Amino acid sequence: MMWNQTGVTQLLGITYPIVQAGMAGVSSPSIVAEVSNAGCLGTLGASYMSPQDITSAIKDIQALTDKPFAVNLFVTQRAIVFSPELQKMQTELAPFRIELELTEPDAIDFEWYDLTQQVQAVVDAGVKIISFTFGIPSADIVTMLHEAGVTIIGTATTVKEAVMIEDAGFHIVVAQGMEAGGHRASFASEDELAVQVGLMSLVPQMVDQVGVPVIAAGGIMDGRSIVAALALGAQGVQLGSAFLLTDESSAVEAYKKALLDTNDESTIVTKLFSGKPARVIANRFTKVLHSLEDNVPAFPLQNTLTSDIRKMAAVVGDTDLMSLYAGQSSCLGRELSARELIDTLVSEVATNQFQYHDASDQN
Amino acid sequence: MMWNQTGVTQLLGITYPIVQAGMAGVSSPSIVAEVSNAGCLGTLGASYMSPQDITSAIKDIQALTDKPFAVNLFVTQRAIVFSPELQKMQTELAPFRIELELTEPDAIDFEWYDLTQQVQAVVDAGVKIISFTFGIPSADIVTMLHEAGVTIIGTATTVKEAVMIEDAGFHIVVAQGMEAGGHRASFASEDELAVQVGLMSLVPQMVDQVGVPVIAAGGIMDGRSIVAALALGAQGVQLGSAFLLTDESSAVEAYKKALLDTNDESTIVTKLFSGKPARVIANRFTKVLHSLEDNVPAFPLQNTLTSDIRKMAAVVGDTDLMSLYAGQSSCLGRELSARELIDTLVSEVATNQFQYHDASDQN
Repeated sequence: MMWNQTGVTQLLGITYPIVQAGMAGVSSPSIVAEVSNAGCLGTLGASYMSPQDITSAIKDIQALTDKPFAVNLFVTQRAIVFSPELQKMQTELAPFRIELELTEPDAIDFEWYDLTQQVQAVVDAGVKIISFTFGIPSADIVTMLHEAGVTIIGTATTVKEAVMIEDAGFHIVVAQGMEAGGHRASFASEDELAVQVGLMSLVPQMVDQVGVPVIAAGGIMDGRSIVAALALGAQGVQLGSAFLLTDESSAVEAYKKALLDTNDESTIVTKLFSGKPARVIANRFTKVLHSLEDNVPAFPLQNTLTSDIRKMAAVVGDTDLMSLYAGQSSCLGRELSARELIDTLVSEVATNQFQYHDASDQN
Repeated sequence: MMWNQTGVTQLLGITYPIVQAGMAGVSSPSIVAEVSNAGCLGTLGASYMSPQDITSAIKDIQALTDKPFAVNLFVTQRAIVFSPELQKMQTELAPFRIELELTEPDAIDFEWYDLTQQVQAVVDAGVKIISFTFGIPSADIVTMLHEAGVTIIGTATTVKEAVMIEDAGFHIVVAQGMEAGGHRASFASEDELAVQVGLMSLVPQMVDQVGVPVIAAGGIMDGRSIVAALALGAQGVQLGSAFLLTDESSAVEAYKKALLDTNDESTIVTKLFSGKPARVIANRFTKVLHSLEDNVPAFPLQNTLTSDIRKMAAVVGDTDLMSLYAGQSSCLGRELSARELIDTLVSEVATNQFQYHDASDQN
């Protein structure tokens, strides 16, 4: 089978089965459009956006490309606000605010956008591909998407989650290996922080158990890992860190430099930035607050609490206090345009040619 | 490059770059010999054996094969015995002894064989390949091995460890991904329990940083993962769990059944069985003692303390109390003879043929 003629390329209407992960906050309309224009799938990470902002961003993308692209949304409930826990966390965060010359916000806005309204904005704008993180939306939403002819992509960190996603009527599942940067998509594990399956183990077990095509994510940075993922049985790959480093991503320069300065031991999985486990580059923020790991307010509360600190740290380029979402292979990234990166990946895949036939037995 | 004409096959004098991991306790002379007779590299896991027993086991293997095979040894210091900690652990282990109708041993024999003498036994017996786990032996031992013309294989869980192994004069390095079953070979991490790098990230970063050939280990069970590892830049693969399930392994039937009954979420990394982090199938033993994880006597003390329990549990087939060393892909194993497994792997590799050239652009 040709790698660019798989179920994934056909379902998504793309030339190469390479997906740019929907990185909320850094997936600008220009990176989404550039990736799609280059024959791959761009993804708008829209989880933290209002329905109105989603509509507007989609219009911006549509002005830049007539190729298919996706929108990614989180499946989460609004967390219940438990005041003493929040106040305790604010006390712990106070020294960082002093350092960044921030004052603790008088009122924290814990508004969380309604998923149905976010999905409706995506459908109304004519987007035909949607991907979900943190689980499976209501049957009503899935039915609405089926009726609108939208291709649905789910994200699974275990085989069990993949089976649940297929059973819910999704068309494609992303296998998120423990190598992946950013939020762990886990939604059906007893201990989301503990269950970490390497991509080398996850993909073959998943493709054996589900009928829908599998896209591999986690540690995919160059032609080597793309070929490896395809050999394991994936029909496509999803890259986050690799696209974070492209010219079109909204990641600040200090973040890009930090990504390239990592090694294989630089990242950890922590709930400290958002309340949900995410792979980040360990920094002073995660080290100082490490002992609080088991007492972090639930997502998205912690995400809101740390928001002013993370944003100001990014403005001043202070990587000690930024949320440096990053995969285990970030140092293999290249600073190119999105199109140059894709051209490079396609070329690397074509030339990664071990000959697996037995040299001593030409049958 | 043909996959069976790599630096690894040439250095080791084997037909296929497939290594049977040196699983201490279950790598019988017959599995070592069968693997080598089938054109791959069998490994005697000799860490817990006296120099005399090593000599004897090597003779048994040499009676069964004239092909190259390896001996694996642990690089560890004798742990200092700290009595109160040991007595506390014995108290925790007491209920399991009652269950298995064992009495607490009057005196625990903490003898640990001298590595130099173990190595000498290997060299004297004419074995030309040796592999080490848990680090790098003394310069005297490395010099002795160089002078004897022995090929030295090290095991690394991080790029840093691989560079140290290469710098010490080793000829080959095994990249042990976090998916691997059994002991984590870590020896240079601040937190051996925390640093876990997926094979998909580890192999490409390692091959970029070291000059010696890399063998990939962790989650390798079938042709898919072998091709994936080679695509990542490895020149060979090492399989543990896959060989545990073969007819020639000394693993008891209950253990083999437990391996096949796993899924991707079944294993954890724990120090509870030996004092060093190892990937095992979570069972009642690990669940009951979970809270002691940070207070386990050092290797090999804990290994000795739990020895009678593990052995009796294996005799009676009680998987609740056995040490079920297992990788994250154990359920992909097949119950075959070692030779049948190797024939199957070679055939699967030859037929794993995604075509990576661009279908739309025949250049």
